[in-house]
Amino acid sequence: MTDASDHFKAQKGLAGVSVTDTRISKSDADGSLIYRGYPIWEIATNAGFEETAFLILNGKLPTRSQLESFTEGLRKRAEVQRKVLGVMRELGRDADPIDVIRTAVSSLGSIDSEKDLRGKQMSLEAKMSVLAANCHRVPRGEAPRSPKSGLRFSDNLLQMLTAREATEYERRVFERVMMLYLEHDMNASSFTVRVVASTLADPYAAASAGLASLKGPLHGGANEAAMEMLLRVRDPAKAGEFLQTAFREKRKIMGFGHRVYKEFDPRARLCKEYLREMLARRGGDDTLYRLCDAMETEMWRAKRIPPNLDFYAAPIFYSLGIEVPLYTPIFAACRIFGWMAHYNEQLEDDRLIRPDSTYVGLSGLKYVPIEDRNP
Amino acid sequence: MTDASDHFKAQKGLAGVSVTDTRISKSDADGSLIYRGYPIWEIATNAGFEETAFLILNGKLPTRSQLESFTEGLRKRAEVQRKVLGVMRELGRDADPIDVIRTAVSSLGSIDSEKDLRGKQMSLEAKMSVLAANCHRVPRGEAPRSPKSGLRFSDNLLQMLTAREATEYERRVFERVMMLYLEHDMNASSFTVRVVASTLADPYAAASAGLASLKGPLHGGANEAAMEMLLRVRDPAKAGEFLQTAFREKRKIMGFGHRVYKEFDPRARLCKEYLREMLARRGGDDTLYRLCDAMETEMWRAKRIPPNLDFYAAPIFYSLGIEVPLYTPIFAACRIFGWMAHYNEQLEDDRLIRPDSTYVGLSGLKYVPIEDRNP
Repeated sequence: MTDASDHFKAQKGLAGVSVTDTRISKSDADGSLIYRGYPIWEIATNAGFEETAFLILNGKLPTRSQLESFTEGLRKRAEVQRKVLGVMRELGRDADPIDVIRTAVSSLGSIDSEKDLRGKQMSLEAKMSVLAANCHRVPRGEAPRSPKSGLRFSDNLLQMLTAREATEYERRVFERVMMLYLEHDMNASSFTVRVVASTLADPYAAASAGLASLKGPLHGGANEAAMEMLLRVRDPAKAGEFLQTAFREKRKIMGFGHRVYKEFDPRARLCKEYLREMLARRGGDDTLYRLCDAMETEMWRAKRIPPNLDFYAAPIFYSLGIEVPLYTPIFAACRIFGWMAHYNEQLEDDRLIRPDSTYVGLSGLKYVPIEDRNP
Repeated sequence: MTDASDHFKAQKGLAGVSVTDTRISKSDADGSLIYRGYPIWEIATNAGFEETAFLILNGKLPTRSQLESFTEGLRKRAEVQRKVLGVMRELGRDADPIDVIRTAVSSLGSIDSEKDLRGKQMSLEAKMSVLAANCHRVPRGEAPRSPKSGLRFSDNLLQMLTAREATEYERRVFERVMMLYLEHDMNASSFTVRVVASTLADPYAAASAGLASLKGPLHGGANEAAMEMLLRVRDPAKAGEFLQTAFREKRKIMGFGHRVYKEFDPRARLCKEYLREMLARRGGDDTLYRLCDAMETEMWRAKRIPPNLDFYAAPIFYSLGIEVPLYTPIFAACRIFGWMAHYNEQLEDDRLIRPDSTYVGLSGLKYVPIEDRNP
């Protein structure tokens, strides 16, 4: 019995290890984010969701006719099959929304009748919004909501998610937040998608694995956890006290910190401004904005950790009247476009993603009959 | 517009990159494989499936009472819920078996009522066999098959998979092959499970992602593809000709080659011997063994690539009367134990698995209005 100490060191979390060349997007420690060559603020300020999705998938902004055919391709694939709704209904009223979407997407692998790869991907891209909006309705036995023709992609998701009428500014804010959730280089779910794609599995398998990783509170669940925290704190004057207690009890503060961004998350900065402006235009209560600002200030003072996208997207969704358990499903409805871009890039020059591990266990043990074993 | 060439090189496929320390198992280029300190042949020769599963999960061979309580824990969780069967039925008769299992496991995330982590994992471990045996029956509307009490875990899977009576030697061969499929350090699906676990997602999410990566022909599909190839070649005398044609047409030969094993795969060696002995004991036709041997010889002569586990497990399954589309489901029914060991080890000292990528795309582009874009 020997203790094998190995020759090479584990790169825990693969931090700082590059797994692939990419042309899709790049986040940088200095707080910059590039989508296919464009700084994120160029895109968030000027582009629409469909254009941005096309850009991320194809590497170029679309011409008018490309955009129309892309939009039409999504539109005609949006209807979720009766059998998929049947699967969702089986899960029952207490099902977790992300479980419901993952199971629905997984079932599409058998139920969807798309023939070619791009058709399958567009089907997933189109249906993910509809699944996000219906993931808690259908298992409760409520009637599914559908997209309306003639609406922007983001307007459609918003109208399916909420019953209320939104102003044009509110709808534009929602579209921008969706664009910010669309893609973010090698995050945990996109990496999961690439790992699965590298086995040459189909896009339904890859997307369901992406959804599996979104289930984790360290990844997709963060926007919901951030909102629940904000609702608990409520009063901007209590932000400092709340954080001090959390630090003492070693609780993780959701919505802060990022593997890449150490100074600021550019998406959080944009969303903070959208939240401020949206509440200002309404002219009413801006407590939620002041609370976020106070949390950000206190957190920076105490720990030098900046808020991330989830921290400011959550109060925007909340102010738009969207139920908290739907925040991660919205993430999925946006990120599916990024996932498919990563799927395609992985397959352009595939090598099975199969890392090694450093064995630090025993070796050379001999089998001992069960009667002779010590407890 | 600048071309950003980056400072650090991508480790494509993460080959040779260690992602974690591990005490679970270790495969080595020299053809050795260790399960928790024990050489694989010690285990395959002496241990049973339940003991091996316990060893991989807990790091020690069980005492009699530990083994009994482990076996009982699996036995009482084997029944697949009516709602899960309902989900499987919705997928329809043409559904791919791995799609069916993945969707069923995903649905368990909402349907299963286990409270604690180990209960959830044992539920998955127990039910995966039942799902594997029923993944093509239930969607076709056939009655589900169930485990019988008092049988070994592997005997139960075999009796659910086939209608025929197997001899004691055949059943022992099946058990050994199951033990060889149980765990294999950082393979693509176990790595997928760890990536998902690292987000702190639950074991149902992690297992469904593992199944997603098994869908890929470069990983889980290999045993089925190997069998289909053997059935196409049929005649041992045609092995050389078949391979030469395949090389000329640059077709991949399934069941050969491995990221780690370059000289030989110890599991393939064991299975080759089991196949030989099983056919010899029957005293009848040994063409399938001779065909495999001829393929191995020709492949080694031409390319110096050894067969892997899938290559020799497939003809064993075939000789036991198991339908080819069930080979990957069997893989899943065994590997779920390894997946859960990796899930637990990841969580013992978790860090989110979030690699980086090397951006080689453009930067600094300016948004151009749609009317001014070139196709």
